[in-house]
Amino acid sequence: MTEEVSRRDFVRMAGAAIGGIALGAVGGYSLVSGKETIVTQDVTLEVPEHPWTYTKIDPENAAKRSYDAFFQGGCCYGVFEGVIGELREQVGHPYSAIPTKLAVFGKGGVVGWGTLCGVINGAGMAINTVTNNLGLVNEVTGWYTETAFPNYVPAVAAKIDGELEKSVSNSPLCHASVTQWCNTSGFDENSPERAERCGRIVYETTYKTVQMLNDLADENFVAAYASPENVILCNSCHSPDGVVNNVMSKMDCDDCHTDAHGN
Amino acid sequence: MTEEVSRRDFVRMAGAAIGGIALGAVGGYSLVSGKETIVTQDVTLEVPEHPWTYTKIDPENAAKRSYDAFFQGGCCYGVFEGVIGELREQVGHPYSAIPTKLAVFGKGGVVGWGTLCGVINGAGMAINTVTNNLGLVNEVTGWYTETAFPNYVPAVAAKIDGELEKSVSNSPLCHASVTQWCNTSGFDENSPERAERCGRIVYETTYKTVQMLNDLADENFVAAYASPENVILCNSCHSPDGVVNNVMSKMDCDDCHTDAHGN
Repeated sequence: MTEEVSRRDFVRMAGAAIGGIALGAVGGYSLVSGKETIVTQDVTLEVPEHPWTYTKIDPENAAKRSYDAFFQGGCCYGVFEGVIGELREQVGHPYSAIPTKLAVFGKGGVVGWGTLCGVINGAGMAINTVTNNLGLVNEVTGWYTETAFPNYVPAVAAKIDGELEKSVSNSPLCHASVTQWCNTSGFDENSPERAERCGRIVYETTYKTVQMLNDLADENFVAAYASPENVILCNSCHSPDGVVNNVMSKMDCDDCHTDAHGN
Repeated sequence: MTEEVSRRDFVRMAGAAIGGIALGAVGGYSLVSGKETIVTQDVTLEVPEHPWTYTKIDPENAAKRSYDAFFQGGCCYGVFEGVIGELREQVGHPYSAIPTKLAVFGKGGVVGWGTLCGVINGAGMAINTVTNNLGLVNEVTGWYTETAFPNYVPAVAAKIDGELEKSVSNSPLCHASVTQWCNTSGFDENSPERAERCGRIVYETTYKTVQMLNDLADENFVAAYASPENVILCNSCHSPDGVVNNVMSKMDCDDCHTDAHGN
């Protein structure tokens, strides 16, 4: 198969793969000897350093892409593909180089272990691809724990039409979030309603992630999340400033430690 | 700066960036019009489909790389860079295209939230880059929960020389794992001993991950992890086959639900 490839695309594609070799301007530069390849003047090849330059994208387009992707490869892949896939489509190189399917494993809190909710994991991968500002990862994690999901109602739903029951997870963990919603809604864990619910959270988390990245691009990102009082109280003893310095966590302690200190 | 680039490298670099366009043999193929670029006969460009082809690497080299990387960018980056960085060095394209620093966010169970231990997250990303067999992710997660860490004693340690106290996390969560070790060893969460301990777990998890990938390449991977009896018991009611189908988790239920059903 042969394909028409524009000069711009060629510069992109050449730049994508040099991995660590910054060519700069390559006037009269011959990539290889003899007949193979000639790249003439005024072609500049740049290898992107991490973090990759972010270009603002439409949050709704990314979110729609993520919703569809969820039903292909799960929650973590959904958000990662939502953001990176939209950048791939809008920007091309270097985003075309990342196989977003590497994030499929994050589904169900890592292949069904129920640990970290995959939407947070996928958002973290996407955010950290384009910025070292991990305040955005903290923000999306905190936002997730406090938000009554799902709010999104697709015009054409994948599994179930109309509104769904909402619940607040109070936790970034998949298991806590899913069980909270099952108990609130009365639907089974393996029901199509629960799958639809998770797909909509993928949509909303991608939307939130792109909004934050766009705000950051505009130098307008402001972190809003603050730890709940009980977490601050527990950490006042169990963290570096406390007397029993044995914990690093921002999760709500009371979710699991219901019997801590006889409380 | 100009660089010598071999024909093989050029094929690699061109192949890396075309993202979805498989060119096959491109006899007489002109990438762009006129003077820009000419690629002559017998040049084959291949775009790697996910999962990317894995080449067996040395587990010790990858593990050493990951131990060093941990002290640069944390646990999740450590394992991801250990495996992918070693592939980058040994294989080159396409592994040179992934900015492994996208995994930094996973440190401390996602920027200090204490959720999923970053070594499992980094292992998941690395495994899922080269295979769709998520049995390996399940295996490394289960193995992590049951292993008394750390066993590795570096010849030249980054922070603390000699052996360290070991503990079994019984959980894939960062917070549970770290606190378990702090309580066992008596060291503070923010001590250099705790950092050294996590660096060594990065080493061991990378080693385990590469061993599994090498076994898989040899068609010799066998899953060994089985859920503990209490998890099977709880799930017998709380999963699809049970009467209260509201849980998806493989974590040890008793770690958090100490008071479940009055037990």
